[in-house]
Formats: sequence, structure tokens, C-alpha cells
Amino acid sequence: MTTTSLTETLRLPGGPVDLTTYDSRATPGFHGGKKDQPAAMEAIAGGLSDHQERLYAGGLTGTGDGRVLLVLQGMDTSGKGGTVRHAVGLLDPQGVRLTSFKAPTAEELEHDFLWRIERALPKSGEVGIFDRSHYEDVLIARVRALAEPSEIERRYDAINAFEQELADSGCTVVKCFLHISPDDQLERLRARLDDPTKHWKYNAADVDERMLWPRYQQAYETALERCSTDAAPWFVVPSGRKWYRNWAVAQLLAEHLADVAPAWPKADFDVDVERERLDATADVGS
Amino acid sequence: MTTTSLTETLRLPGGPVDLTTYDSRATPGFHGGKKDQPAAMEAIAGGLSDHQERLYAGGLTGTGDGRVLLVLQGMDTSGKGGTVRHAVGLLDPQGVRLTSFKAPTAEELEHDFLWRIERALPKSGEVGIFDRSHYEDVLIARVRALAEPSEIERRYDAINAFEQELADSGCTVVKCFLHISPDDQLERLRARLDDPTKHWKYNAADVDERMLWPRYQQAYETALERCSTDAAPWFVVPSGRKWYRNWAVAQLLAEHLADVAPAWPKADFDVDVERERLDATADVGS
Repeated sequence: MTTTSLTETLRLPGGPVDLTTYDSRATPGFHGGKKDQPAAMEAIAGGLSDHQERLYAGGLTGTGDGRVLLVLQGMDTSGKGGTVRHAVGLLDPQGVRLTSFKAPTAEELEHDFLWRIERALPKSGEVGIFDRSHYEDVLIARVRALAEPSEIERRYDAINAFEQELADSGCTVVKCFLHISPDDQLERLRARLDDPTKHWKYNAADVDERMLWPRYQQAYETALERCSTDAAPWFVVPSGRKWYRNWAVAQLLAEHLADVAPAWPKADFDVDVERERLDATADVGS
Repeated sequence: MTTTSLTETLRLPGGPVDLTTYDSRATPGFHGGKKDQPAAMEAIAGGLSDHQERLYAGGLTGTGDGRVLLVLQGMDTSGKGGTVRHAVGLLDPQGVRLTSFKAPTAEELEHDFLWRIERALPKSGEVGIFDRSHYEDVLIARVRALAEPSEIERRYDAINAFEQELADSGCTVVKCFLHISPDDQLERLRARLDDPTKHWKYNAADVDERMLWPRYQQAYETALERCSTDAAPWFVVPSGRKWYRNWAVAQLLAEHLADVAPAWPKADFDVDVERERLDATADVGS
């Protein structure tokens, strides 16, 4: 990977995290503006497709055990859904495993918080997508006190150990925090109220959550700081501009897939023998 | 739906089916040739996206119970995977539920053949995609005698009853038979042998299956004839030209989604009240 990769540009540096120092409308690593984005997306698509197919071929033939997990986190309206549509949408659906995590069910609550996560992990050759994730268990769970403080505290280390194991087992973990400002959110919630075709996306509870903005930011800062590791670093994706956000996540995916995509599997059969066998069937339909 | 819809054009007529009378390289309903296909795909994408989002919104808000199931069947190399990539790939991954059916597992074999199918059905608001399906249980199962003749015989009626129930419950079933000729298949298998980046797609068993071509065609003819119902008709998609096949399945999806997409859900909250609540949070981040 070159030193100008978006992976390096957006990777969260070590040390304390202060999200107010990040400009949500910045466009780091992108050359040009909104009008240049469609061409940039198209430029990504070919390589992404090729690398994903190699990964998939490796998994299918049992010759490769690579897999990728993209984790999307962010405040309401940060665009997790839009990112799935526009960035994940570039991938071949065959080979994608998407899970949207909601409030845990009664059954899920009976288990450790990582139980439902483990069941949703991508298999070899797959690209797993988490729309929300185990991080909710140190975000809303912390802000809304859905678990004891000691349990929340335990979870940071549990997450790090879990992600280290994931990485050790050949899973590339790409964690994207879609960063928006309170003003970005205000604008987007207003837009949902103003447009009847977007009313279904609006939930009165969104405003209740918004009132806790500072506490959520604090919870995010803690999670980002404590759970950005070499095995599974966090990327802070400025998401005040949707077109940049979509490009950035697609580009991060592309760079990581390029890194892990294996060579095409070698034939496990004799090509010449198969050619002869096949030739012998030339008239099979007549 | 107008009388010139592709739905009407490709719908299997009643009566005995003779697949040799279908030209696999025909392009019914498409105006122009290969070079016009990308623009045609783009023309489909917008409406498809809008209608899928309405369907999804209905499911999410509980205001609509519509759902769609696309069934893809066809001989090896007919392009089920390519169709998923290029036609299904136009859909928002959020809202798509894709299942690729392989040879049944030991657990699946302990149940009725429809057991695993029921578990993979789309929920309200979703578009389910079956890459192979319950039809394998009257296709390879018949040709390879994987079940008693009386059991195979029973399955046709079981499938019709199952699909009727599906339709009654609000699920639109779109069954596509991707039709290729023996020569199309020969050419594609040769291409896989000739190209090392395609070796992983080749399986020596493909030739064994190919040798049974006439018996498979007969099994398909029987399945198409007996299981094309008003509730769940079959569509015969000429698939000798990949670009046409991709367009045709996308267009069939688009027409059916347009038919079932509900209006946008109405707000279940007071918009003015919410505007005021939201305005009161304008400074929440400062």
C-alpha cells in the first residue's frame, strides 16, 4: 500500500480522541469536488469487482481463507444506509453478507453481547457488512445505562480480544465511523420532516437521542480511543458530504480488498483431459 | 401493466413445453443490440430503486406486507451468478435476501424438501433471490434419481400449493428459467478451460451433468409445464446473450416491483410538533 492510501489518511491516530477537531465536511484524499465523484466511483468499481471475485473464488474452492468485515457506525442520519446502498452496492451481492443490528432481542439478551455478532460473521471469501455492530454495546448501552458500568467497562477489552482473534483467523476488519456534526444532523432530520417520501425514515425517538448528543460523542470518543488497535483500527470518515462518504468507504473497501485478494485458484484438474472430455460431448443436445 | 410488458412477452404459455423451439439467442422485447444495453440498464435503475425503497419502507414501518421472490434456474453456465451480479446488483443490498442453494445438507435431508426453502423466504419489504431453488428437487433429483418416483411426482403439486400460499400471503413470485442451448454451454465451458482466471468456476462434474442434457431438458420441460400457474408463472429468459439475459431479468424485476410497490408510508407523528421539538435541539452540540 502506498503512503498516500486513504487507509493511512483516515486511520485514527493513537491517543485521546476529540471529535470536535474533525471537520465533518472535509474531503481528505479526494481530488476534486462533487462533480468528479461519479467518475471516481466508476474508477473504483473494476478493481473492487476483480478483487472481490478472487476473494470469493478462494473461499469457494477452499484455497483461501481471507474474508473482510466492514463495520459501519455513526449517529442517526450519518448515512449507514446510504453507504450500504452506494458503496456496498458496488460489490457482487453473491459474496456479501449484510447484517443490520437492531435493539437486541430477548434471546440475544440472554447471551453475551458478542453472541449475535459471532453468528453474523462473514465466512471465508465473503465480505461481511455490519450496519451497527457490537459497538452499540458500548455506545447506546453506555449512554442509556443498559448495562452495569462494570459490564460496559469489561466490554472494551472483550471487543479488542474478539477483534484480535478475528484478525488472527484471517478476517480483515475495517471499522468506519461516519462522522457528522450536530448541524449536519439537524439539517438532515429537518429534510426528513420536510419531505413526505422521507417521513418513514423519521422517528420521534431520534430527537430524544439527539438531545444526548454530547454524551454520545463522549461514548464514541472512548470507544474509538480504546478500541482502535493494530489488528482492527478505526477510520474516521467525514460524512457531512454524502458523496465523499460514499466514495471514501468504497475506496477503503477497495484498498483492503486489494490487500487481501489472493491469486486466482489453480486448476485442480487436468485442463487437457477436461478439454477432451468436453469435446466428446459436443453433440449432446442433438 | 401494459400489453407490451416483458412480463407478458416472456411468460410461458400454457400447454406442453418444448424447449428446442426457443431460440436461446433471441432478444424479445429489447429494442436495439448489445451496444444499447448499458443505457437500457441505466434507464431501469432509477425506477427499480424507487420502487424497492417503497417496498422496503412498507415492510419497515409495518404499513405494507408486500415482498418479492425471484427464482433463478438454469443449466450450468446459464448465468445465474452473472444475473445476480448484474441484475440483482441494481438493487439496494439493504432489503435483498440472497440464498444460493447447494446440495442439501444432512440436516436438510431429514426434513421435507420445502423446509430449507421456507427458512430462506423474504420478509415483508424484502426482495428474496433464490440462486437455484426447490425446483432442484424435481430436476437433478429426477434426473439423478435422488428420490423415489412417487416422491418426485408428489413434489409438483406440493410446489404449486406452496407457491399458491406464498402468493396469497402477499409474496410476488418471479420464476426465471435462464434458457441456453447445448452449444451455448459448450462454448462457455470451453471458455472456462481456456482462461486460467475462470478455472475456479470449472468442475469436472459439469461434463458429467452435460452428458445428461436431454434428460435435464425433459425434467425442465415437465417442471415448467406443471408448475407454471397464475399464482406463480414461469418466465423463459433467452440467455445465450448475457447482456440480454441481464437486462431481461432486471426488467422483469422492475415491472413486478412497480406493480407491488406501495405508496410511501404516511407519517405516524405530527410533523409540526416534531419540527418544534427538533428546533429546540438546534444548539445541542455546543
